[in-house]
Amino acid sequence: MGKVVNISQCFKMFSDTFSPKIIGELNGQYILVVRCEGDKVPWHTHENEDEMFFVIEGVLDVLEKDKKVTVNSGEFYIVSRGTEHRVVPQGLVKLMLFEPAGIAHTGEVRTEITKKKFDRLDV
Amino acid sequence: MGKVVNISQCFKMFSDTFSPKIIGELNGQYILVVRCEGDKVPWHTHENEDEMFFVIEGVLDVLEKDKKVTVNSGEFYIVSRGTEHRVVPQGLVKLMLFEPAGIAHTGEVRTEITKKKFDRLDV
Repeated sequence: MGKVVNISQCFKMFSDTFSPKIIGELNGQYILVVRCEGDKVPWHTHENEDEMFFVIEGVLDVLEKDKKVTVNSGEFYIVSRGTEHRVVPQGLVKLMLFEPAGIAHTGEVRTEITKKKFDRLDV
Repeated sequence: MGKVVNISQCFKMFSDTFSPKIIGELNGQYILVVRCEGDKVPWHTHENEDEMFFVIEGVLDVLEKDKKVTVNSGEFYIVSRGTEHRVVPQGLVKLMLFEPAGIAHTGEVRTEITKKKFDRLDV
């Protein structure tokens, strides 16, 4: 806290994909940025957390069992707790995420992209 | 929840200033949009809530007792709980706010801009 954070600058500080970076924290929630590319996110569920996907650049498909939505730049979508979902980026996508501190980004599912702990950007 | 929300479209749905509109809710937090114009926000404090100001368009000065920061489009600033502050838009500013549901936007201070309850946009 206590600093002005520029979202574009944050994305210049890392290049890896599917590895959310903490850029802010408030009221027990993290603000994260992440780069996504490729169909790598498994179906998973957050039992106790709602999750917000805010597209900064690119196009993101969000799939739930009974629906699919397409989220464009400048748009967000909230996946409700308990809803099985996965996301599929169309090409390279830059996202901002809002979610409770301590969330496991692939739920109880573990795959090659799963991170036990998020990095914190020195913004 | 359950809908894709376009931030630009949200701003086309209202024209009043200093009246935050709820456009999303997750984990006990509101996502709000607000238009600000003029030096109208009083000094105030949120004792138990951190508050995030994300500038969508325009330039916002955030004043704390011992500092002043300028927040440009694509940037955010978090005011920590317990910190007396006020915001001064440079011209017309469009903001996205992220803060706990139930927050009083001018703290315990009541002025002409104070809203007891936020409107909810039909996004």
